[in-house]
Order: sequence, then structure tokens, then C-alpha cells
Amino acid sequence: MHLARVIGTVVATQKATGLEGVKLLWVQPLDRQQQSTGVPQVAADATAQAGPDELVFTIASREAALALPQTFVPVDLAIVGIVDDVQDLEERV
Amino acid sequence: MHLARVIGTVVATQKATGLEGVKLLWVQPLDRQQQSTGVPQVAADATAQAGPDELVFTIASREAALALPQTFVPVDLAIVGIVDDVQDLEERV
Amino acid sequence: MHLARVIGTVVATQKATGLEGVKLLWVQPLDRQQQSTGVPQVAADATAQAGPDELVFTIASREAALALPQTFVPVDLAIVGIVDDVQDLEERV
Amino acid sequence: MHLARVIGTVVATQKATGLEGVKLLWVQPLDRQQQSTGVPQVAADATAQAGPDELVFTIASREAALALPQTFVPVDLAIVGIVDDVQDLEERV
Amino acid sequence: MHLARVIGTVVATQKATGLEGVKLLWVQPLDRQQQSTGVPQVAADATAQAGPDELVFTIASREAALALPQTFVPVDLAIVGIVDDVQDLEERV
Repeated sequence: MHLARVIGTVVATQKATGLEGVKLLWVQPLDRQQQSTGVPQVAADATAQAGPDELVFTIASREAALALPQTFVPVDLAIVGIVDDVQDLEERV
Repeated sequence: MHLARVIGTVVATQKATGLEGVKLLWVQPLDRQQQSTGVPQVAADATAQAGPDELVFTIASREAALALPQTFVPVDLAIVGIVDDVQDLEERV
Repeated sequence: MHLARVIGTVVATQKATGLEGVKLLWVQPLDRQQQSTGVPQVAADATAQAGPDELVFTIASREAALALPQTFVPVDLAIVGIVDDVQDLEERV
Repeated sequence: MHLARVIGTVVATQKATGLEGVKLLWVQPLDRQQQSTGVPQVAADATAQAGPDELVFTIASREAALALPQTFVPVDLAIVGIVDDVQDLEERV
Repeated sequence: MHLARVIGTVVATQKATGLEGVKLLWVQPLDRQQQSTGVPQVAADATAQAGPDELVFTIASREAALALPQTFVPVDLAIVGIVDDVQDLEERV
């Protein structure tokens, strides 16, 4: 899973079957210092509770679809947790 | 899922079984500023409505095949939504 | 799917079960200008018709195996189409 | 599989169904010289024994979920071994 | 599939269920000139015959697990062939 920050939303009315009613968030992957790295992606929210600017972690591929409550949703990225804290060993010193 | 723009079409008469009649679009992945990033890919269109120059989002891997109406189509990328609007939190300020 | 060019063949006599008789082509991924990008990969040919120097498109992962006629072939990349033409919107102008 | 080092833990109380009770470790992928390469990821621990600063190897995608004892856990990365020793041929000379 | 060279072995006594008795090789992906590219990975050997310094090709993801004789092995990379020869079209001239 990857750490990411919710940076926006994606609005789409014409969608593939199964995506109706699925809220699509725009998430930015983060590096060890929680700075942006790579390209933002569109994710479904399997926690149903992720809000703007929140620190989350995401799963990709087949697991993303399986994490959602509906039977089949054509997604390849889902938010599966809202991060309370990241404990980095190096920062302990 | 990734944001992408439809930049063309791919014509192929000799194809693997299952790809007959599948329209193949050429899509360019986009970064946060909706500029081109990375290499264009070939995608099937699960919305059946994506046209040239349109802003879309795509799913990859096994989910791409499952998003299409046919039983089995050998694809690993599909357009699953046509984007009306991307709301970027940073642009609100 | 990715555009690629057939740049050679790979010969291997000691192979995993299921790969006997599968022709292995060496393919080079291409960018928008159809120049080489990234590292060449080894692909099975699901079209049974791809030849040297041909422009093709490939699928990756589980779909690659499913595209082949045999029941199970341990491959993660397959050529699924021979490209007749790529129409790039930008070149129309 | 990739070599990685456990660099911390991720705490999340709001999680997708199936992630309750799963310990989430933060792991840093390593290169041939066992230096950090790429972005840290969040992994479940299928060995149940990985601790801080430990050298491990991880599996990604669907296999990660299958490696865990529970029926379905929405993860796409799991630690599947704790590395005792890496023998590099080049270092033999 | 990717061309790679066997560069060592990985020793791990504490492993996830299913990995007992699986020999883990350390493989370095190669580019067109058969030079090292990217980060070495840990692979199971589905040929049962790959040795040190050998040129091989590997499959990734779900197919890797399916290539092995055992029912379920939690791996995401397997050696599926030992390469006798790579014929590069450009070198013919």
C-alpha cells in the first residue's frame, strides 16, 4: 500500500457500469518525508470517510475492487485506511 | 485510476481472439497540471462514448477486462469514465 | 496495452511446464514518436502472425496468459494485435 | 519479491473491512547495495515476526492477500520472509 | 517477461506458509545490451535448473505462483526459462 494525500475530487457523469454512486477522490502519492512523488491518481474510497487533505493509504489492482462493499466495481485503486500516525524509526533518535 | 487524454486511435486487423469489434483508443496519461506524463497507451473504451481529445480516466490490469460488456476481452487498460471536472484543493485558495 | 516493435527472438530449451512450443519474441516498447522507451521484454505471440520488425501492441499480466489458445501458459506479456496504423490527433493539423 | 527494510509502523483506526487487527509496517525497498531506493510502502506482515530495522522480502499484488492467514484482507503488499543472508556472486571474488 | 541474470541467493528461515523448501534466487533485470537495469529482485525458480550467473527470463505477478509445481506458493516473481540465445535484429546487419 502507498501513503497518499487526498488532493481533490473527480466528477464524471458518463461512467462504466458499476461506477454509479462511487465517490472518486484524487490522491497524491507521498514519499518518506510525506512530500508529493509521482502522478496523482483517481481512487474509490473503501473507508467511506476520507475527506479533503487527509493522509490515507491506498491499495492497487484487483484488491482495490474487492475492498469495496459492492459486488463488482471497476476500479484499480482504493483508499483502505485513514492514517492517524506514521512512526518513522529514524525520527526516534 | 489515471487521468488521461484521448490522443488518437489504433487500427489493427490482425488481432487476438476476443478483440474483434473492440475500438482501440490511444490515450496519454496526465500529471496534476494535466500535462502529458509517461508513454501513451492503447485502451478499450468501456464507456462507449469517449471521443478525440476527451479527458478520461482509465483502469488497468484485470479490472479493465471486467469493465467491458463482453465475456472475455484480452485488454489490460480500459477507459471507465469521461471526466466533467477535476477539483484540485490547491486551486481553491 | 503498449505499442512495441518486435526486435528479435529468445531461444530457451529449459523452460517451465506450459511454455513448450510457445514462440518467444523480444519486443521493444515505444513512445508517442514510436521511438524506443524503457527495457525490451519477452512476449508470447497471441496473434500467431507477428514477425520481425513489426509494430504490435501487447497486454501484460494475467490477461496475457488468457489471450493464448492453450489452457495455461506461464507468461505475463502477449502480443495481441499487429498495428496497421496509429492515428495521432496532433498530426492531423 | 523485493528486498526491503522495516523503517516504521503505520497507525490507522479508520480502515476498510478486513484490515482490523492487521499490523501495518512501513518498509523501504532496497537496491543491490541494500541502500534505499524508491518510495516506502505500507505492508502487512505474513511472517508475524518482522520487527523494526529488519531486512525482509515482500510480495506484491494479489499474492500479498493470499499469503495472509485470514480469508480476505485488502492488502497489496506483504512481508513473506525475514532475510538471514543475501549472497551476492560479485562479492565472492 | 524480462531478461535477467542470476546474481545470488537469498537465505531466509522465517518465511510465510508455502515458502518452505522454495529456493530463492536473486536476479538482476537486464536491458537490451544485457547490462544491469533497475533493482535486483528475489525470484522462485520454476525451471528448477537455474544456476549462478545464468541468463534467464522471469514472469511476474499471479502467473509466477501458477508456474510453480506446488499448489500455492506466495511469490510474485518466478524464473520460467533459461536463455540459450537472444537474437537481436539490429545485430544481424
